[in-house]
Amino acid sequence: MLEATRENDPVLFQRIAANFEHQGMMRHFQASLLRVTLGKVELWLPYSDKLTQQNGGFHGGAIGAIADAAAGYAAVTTVPPDMQALTAEYKINFLSMYKEGALRAIGQVVKSGKRVIVAHAEVLHVADGGKESLCAVMQQTLVPVPMMY
Amino acid sequence: MLEATRENDPVLFQRIAANFEHQGMMRHFQASLLRVTLGKVELWLPYSDKLTQQNGGFHGGAIGAIADAAAGYAAVTTVPPDMQALTAEYKINFLSMYKEGALRAIGQVVKSGKRVIVAHAEVLHVADGGKESLCAVMQQTLVPVPMMY
Amino acid sequence: MLEATRENDPVLFQRIAANFEHQGMMRHFQASLLRVTLGKVELWLPYSDKLTQQNGGFHGGAIGAIADAAAGYAAVTTVPPDMQALTAEYKINFLSMYKEGALRAIGQVVKSGKRVIVAHAEVLHVADGGKESLCAVMQQTLVPVPMMY
Amino acid sequence: MLEATRENDPVLFQRIAANFEHQGMMRHFQASLLRVTLGKVELWLPYSDKLTQQNGGFHGGAIGAIADAAAGYAAVTTVPPDMQALTAEYKINFLSMYKEGALRAIGQVVKSGKRVIVAHAEVLHVADGGKESLCAVMQQTLVPVPMMY
Repeated sequence: MLEATRENDPVLFQRIAANFEHQGMMRHFQASLLRVTLGKVELWLPYSDKLTQQNGGFHGGAIGAIADAAAGYAAVTTVPPDMQALTAEYKINFLSMYKEGALRAIGQVVKSGKRVIVAHAEVLHVADGGKESLCAVMQQTLVPVPMMY
Repeated sequence: MLEATRENDPVLFQRIAANFEHQGMMRHFQASLLRVTLGKVELWLPYSDKLTQQNGGFHGGAIGAIADAAAGYAAVTTVPPDMQALTAEYKINFLSMYKEGALRAIGQVVKSGKRVIVAHAEVLHVADGGKESLCAVMQQTLVPVPMMY
Repeated sequence: MLEATRENDPVLFQRIAANFEHQGMMRHFQASLLRVTLGKVELWLPYSDKLTQQNGGFHGGAIGAIADAAAGYAAVTTVPPDMQALTAEYKINFLSMYKEGALRAIGQVVKSGKRVIVAHAEVLHVADGGKESLCAVMQQTLVPVPMMY
Repeated sequence: MLEATRENDPVLFQRIAANFEHQGMMRHFQASLLRVTLGKVELWLPYSDKLTQQNGGFHGGAIGAIADAAAGYAAVTTVPPDMQALTAEYKINFLSMYKEGALRAIGQVVKSGKRVIVAHAEVLHVADGGKESLCAVMQQTLVPVPMMY
């Protein structure tokens, strides 16, 4: 994480962190912000029983939420500070079920337009020993709108 | 809810309820099962600060989770009792942001095939006074696989 | 088709027909406009060897094109006459492969907003004897923009 | 294209080319096969009035068809020779409208599983002078099934 921190853009990190703190769901999930650079944001979601589906794996809803948030924050880094980006829609493919460890969601902007922003996320599962495996891929459409909070 | 209960298929309801109890995420969200019939399942998700995004509205991740679950359970009602249905992917459009009240997610099977099941969900926001508004629509692909729990 | 014609909104039909004539792809596919009402448009695509995939069935690309067009025109009926609606994205599920006959694509607006329009399409296969079967379902996001032609 | 040819896997190229020849729609579109390697296939689609929407740009249906085909063929390279891969669904985002030139669709497998294959496509617009711009991105789900032709 030290390395990650060094790669951060401090101004953008502040902006995203302020938004992140307003998200009750991210707090409840105990998610955290790993790194923020222009057009790219990484989030971290440690396994807990708040996040499970019927087989004890990460619930698709949790995977979708962290992917949506990572890609959405990546989009926010590309709009002016008085704007935010609302998710119009996303599509996510689940590649494998994983238990324990944590999820690392890497959101990236594909194109940031005036009316529409397209972003992409990869969600990696990180096993307790550090092994990373691709867990899900997401494609997302956002709309830039003025800030509301 | 009395009316809803009367519409349930009791055998299918038992099956889905057993699966639902295994989902840590649904328990922590305080979601509940409203009704279960062949090919159609409804879930209920009351607003709480575990579910919010930065503007205090329901988080897209929570809306996606409840839609995924409702459509996924609808799929489960169409497979034999020793099978389950895993979400391969879904796509969700968010139509409006809503605060407070609750979400009612209505999942329905579009086609249940041997290799692939296609399902659909509508998520309605139910205001404290009872007014219902369309909040999100989802289209989902599942794969029938043997039970694992 | 007489019945269909009677259901048309003549002003909206003119508007959509003018746009339709500008689409080289629809002409080459020999697609036609079945009916146009506010928020709902139906298109017709007869089978031909221009439209086939490797097994002789309708190509997913042809099914996607006619679904995209039907839902997109449905969106156009909800914007002012000097505006059009561009497809930002769509997601389509293919339910069965069909040969011969024709496709009937029914596009409907789910929500028409200022920044984003969400639409839905069902594509039915119509066999030579008239039997209709569900072929594909699509969910689509559009953006209203000024006319360019 | 000479360079492209050198990168081809000749056995896989034969297999994909045989399938490609069975696709009436690809012939009608005058699409061609640029390169085939394990898990990655590129197609080429030159602009023509068979492919246009109302503003004279490439029709979303044509872009979707070439993306679907490229990613689908990439999937086929990962299954045994007596199997094919049918598209269960795809989701495509359109990034910009382009006229003239050609489209280069690059399909790649994300994960090839026993029950489900996930693939991705990028569609680049290639202007007459050679300049490449990102036109669309697609995420696709396929199902491996026995050959039918």
